[in-house]
Amino acid sequence: MQSDIEISRAATLRPIGQIAAALSIPDAAVEPYGHFKAKIDLSRVPATGKQGKLILVTAINPTPAGEGKSTTSVGLSDALNRIGRQTVLCLREPSLGPCFGTKGGAAGGGYAQVAPMEDINLHFTGDFHATTSAHNLLAAMIDNHVHWGNALDIDVRRIVWRRVLDMNDRALRDIAQSLGGPANGYPRESGFDITVASEVMAILCLATDLHDLEARLGRIVVAYTRDRRPVTARDLKADGAMAVLLAQAIKPNLVQTLEGNPAFVHGGPFANIAHGCNSVIATRTALALGDYVVTEAGFGADLGAEKFFDIKCRQSGLKPSAAVIVATVRALKMNGGVAKADLGAEDVAAVRRGGVNLARHIENVRMFGVPVIVAINRFDGDSAAEIAAIGEIAMALGSEAVLCTHWADGGAGAVALAEKVADLCDHATPQFAPIYDDGLSLFEKINTVATRIYRAEEAIADPGVHAQLKRWEDAGYGALPVCMAKTQYSFSTDPAKLGAPTGHVVPVREVRLSAGAGFVVAICGEIMTMPGLPRVPAAEAIRFGADGEIEGLF
Amino acid sequence: MQSDIEISRAATLRPIGQIAAALSIPDAAVEPYGHFKAKIDLSRVPATGKQGKLILVTAINPTPAGEGKSTTSVGLSDALNRIGRQTVLCLREPSLGPCFGTKGGAAGGGYAQVAPMEDINLHFTGDFHATTSAHNLLAAMIDNHVHWGNALDIDVRRIVWRRVLDMNDRALRDIAQSLGGPANGYPRESGFDITVASEVMAILCLATDLHDLEARLGRIVVAYTRDRRPVTARDLKADGAMAVLLAQAIKPNLVQTLEGNPAFVHGGPFANIAHGCNSVIATRTALALGDYVVTEAGFGADLGAEKFFDIKCRQSGLKPSAAVIVATVRALKMNGGVAKADLGAEDVAAVRRGGVNLARHIENVRMFGVPVIVAINRFDGDSAAEIAAIGEIAMALGSEAVLCTHWADGGAGAVALAEKVADLCDHATPQFAPIYDDGLSLFEKINTVATRIYRAEEAIADPGVHAQLKRWEDAGYGALPVCMAKTQYSFSTDPAKLGAPTGHVVPVREVRLSAGAGFVVAICGEIMTMPGLPRVPAAEAIRFGADGEIEGLF
Repeated sequence: MQSDIEISRAATLRPIGQIAAALSIPDAAVEPYGHFKAKIDLSRVPATGKQGKLILVTAINPTPAGEGKSTTSVGLSDALNRIGRQTVLCLREPSLGPCFGTKGGAAGGGYAQVAPMEDINLHFTGDFHATTSAHNLLAAMIDNHVHWGNALDIDVRRIVWRRVLDMNDRALRDIAQSLGGPANGYPRESGFDITVASEVMAILCLATDLHDLEARLGRIVVAYTRDRRPVTARDLKADGAMAVLLAQAIKPNLVQTLEGNPAFVHGGPFANIAHGCNSVIATRTALALGDYVVTEAGFGADLGAEKFFDIKCRQSGLKPSAAVIVATVRALKMNGGVAKADLGAEDVAAVRRGGVNLARHIENVRMFGVPVIVAINRFDGDSAAEIAAIGEIAMALGSEAVLCTHWADGGAGAVALAEKVADLCDHATPQFAPIYDDGLSLFEKINTVATRIYRAEEAIADPGVHAQLKRWEDAGYGALPVCMAKTQYSFSTDPAKLGAPTGHVVPVREVRLSAGAGFVVAICGEIMTMPGLPRVPAAEAIRFGADGEIEGLF
Repeated sequence: MQSDIEISRAATLRPIGQIAAALSIPDAAVEPYGHFKAKIDLSRVPATGKQGKLILVTAINPTPAGEGKSTTSVGLSDALNRIGRQTVLCLREPSLGPCFGTKGGAAGGGYAQVAPMEDINLHFTGDFHATTSAHNLLAAMIDNHVHWGNALDIDVRRIVWRRVLDMNDRALRDIAQSLGGPANGYPRESGFDITVASEVMAILCLATDLHDLEARLGRIVVAYTRDRRPVTARDLKADGAMAVLLAQAIKPNLVQTLEGNPAFVHGGPFANIAHGCNSVIATRTALALGDYVVTEAGFGADLGAEKFFDIKCRQSGLKPSAAVIVATVRALKMNGGVAKADLGAEDVAAVRRGGVNLARHIENVRMFGVPVIVAINRFDGDSAAEIAAIGEIAMALGSEAVLCTHWADGGAGAVALAEKVADLCDHATPQFAPIYDDGLSLFEKINTVATRIYRAEEAIADPGVHAQLKRWEDAGYGALPVCMAKTQYSFSTDPAKLGAPTGHVVPVREVRLSAGAGFVVAICGEIMTMPGLPRVPAAEAIRFGADGEIEGLF
């Protein structure tokens, strides 16, 4: 069996200008980055008046068995193109840092990949580097402002803007900075997060254009004064330079699937402390160019789909036509209590027990008024009876589950799914709406997600958290949506509670304001914003082989 | 009078493919980055067997009056092309960090610029970001190694590898890292330098190909064991992944001058703790494609030319045919004791007094066996008598000074210079040789540069410095050249001693090993490796204007 990278290298890619031309993007709008990647200058793309149908690919709660959400997104997009539906794919950009840890790349898999894989997984078109630069320029300007007299009266104990690197580096999580004497500023505690956790990344992915980008950057709250007034990036006059640093990054990146279909791979915010979706600009561009647009959201539907609907669609006015929930026999068995080592044996009862997880996600997505179909991403060893059990679970809820083999077969393996999805888009009448209104209090919004989506008894928080939310409401941030940061492995905040737990509460440990991105983050449990490298980092095996090809990256 | 940016924007650039084609670079080797920048894949450029003539542009000691070394390099290159000599320009890439401080851009000026200016001054083709990533991956792998058991027995007190950012940020100069408990590693002191100060940048610019790059990365000494044995990047198995991160960065970047002539802008190491020249790969590529190659080196000839000859040419086997020393009336007057505010008044005596600086640089460059000509970069207000005085100084040494007006007139303003330079290249018989042999001891090499180039009485150092040099000689690093880090404003280590000081000594405060780059740094005086932002950073004025153009960057 060929590895992902072997399959990718064996593919013959079309010059990126051809991919653009097939979407009627004029030549002048195509800014090539090498032969197979391009940024699209939207100021040179004429308005089409077109509004494609938007399809969200989401999943059950992830398990170590793997689900294949990106792979299914690629396969579905290729399959829709195969059946004559002009479709554009929209994915997130992978983070560079984890490539050198354990994770490997993120560009789909098997015969359902986007390419060129090495480029996408390494520096790509530099968007993450630009995000890092813009973020850290703001950080430097804060300390510089304080150093030169602190005219804004920033309370150095209440600077909330950290720095970022696109690197897994635990040594930078907590630092003492500005040591070494007066020339280096006022010593204080701080630290680094990974770039995908930067609010700048979330802003890049929610901004509708360069003007909105600059306005959002200006609204970032970086610190508080001694009397607790927020200090923004605009107060520091950093917003203009940050926008200039992001001028290329905001242009969507066009690449292709292995089957030569168009894919925008653009932006990649964390799915815990941010909303975990590719850029609004890429999605809107795709909708203006294609009849159908397939996109995905991070983690399972409890986090990914909820934020896609309640943050991305709410802010941008996008209206999804259908959702696909990806499930696998193996992951449902794990949700049904089977250990990873025992997944090889057929166990229909375990699939049924774990199926409660799938059932709840189906119910949840429907709450947003979006019709749902289940994609069973087939793995070797799945039995016919196990697959049938998933179908029964979907059927019992009036939905349907379709077996897919795109990993092995490319788009041909997802044609049945594509036909059902196209049918849903063309004939269902979705009534999309977010699950809570802007007018609720911030804590009521948190509680709504906790009780309706996570099915908890309630959300709870210390008085300090309530007081903080109140201060933000008083400062004019009360209309923002909430961005829940909890474990992706469970509906609850306990990663060990698989399936469909009930009776739990959701403790909100901490809240953070992302005023530029436009949401309030509710942190429920331990959330890691700067990963570390493992005992044996993947980096140790990455190098150029004798044939000049990269080894060990994937 | 138009500003640099107005002139640059008014120019009509040729598509980069045309620039490449004019150099006989095959289409398949051109990796475009937008319409006006490209990386050249050298594996797809057939060998030409050609060996162009190499011309170094250097300068007198810099003053606040400005000299215009890059501008003269551009003007000379355009002028050589005007007189029918096929010429390729090689410059360094500017650093992003200083753009947001005070420095502004670095792409020449007036009608002697390389373009596209904004791109070159911002992210360009991502080379500096890749350098930052490779450098910081190695840093993360060091702390990770210690965290997971420290099998190499690294002495955490003797980790010499810091981190880098392409940012002016004084708060990061000295930090305490790995705070926050056992999960974050062992607390220790460290800090960040600006990316151009990274040894990885120096390596990128001295490597001859990807294979040599990886070998050099592997030789980087990052720490010492408790018994003082050096620990290298190869010991940590970081070299392969670092090379993979630099695979695009090592390809030279092709752009054009405003007159449509080819320019490689590639690599940009510091000129103090590194050697301050563009990449060997770019220079060699240019020599294989052009009949003449114009390049420059950082700071004045005491630092820039010396390192160009003793480090870059020594390591790579390049043999320069001629050197141009750039001088201005204003800078010589400052060297002659005139204050900046008084530069407007004609003062021929001051030009003559300051001329000792120029004279010494002429003598020095000739010591390397390279013929010299002086370019007088004319500024408004220079008088004919002042200009004539410079000519007399050059003439007295058997050289010649040529008046240039390329800032105002483009290549046409440097045709007289170009004719003299071409003549030197074609008829002089240069006998290039470095100024010291590999076989001298490290301190003897330092002393040779101090006494012969800086004309000091001697170099001095504490016993600790001598002991450190001895340890490196014992460890096999004795054959390396030395890289002098001292003030650029004076031949001495006192920036206030202008002109041609004598009787001084050169105190070596500290020495550092750059085993991958292949030199030992001798630090003489205060050297800043992480700049800070000024009271009012340039960043505050940088933004998109109403017309969509970037304001405030230059």
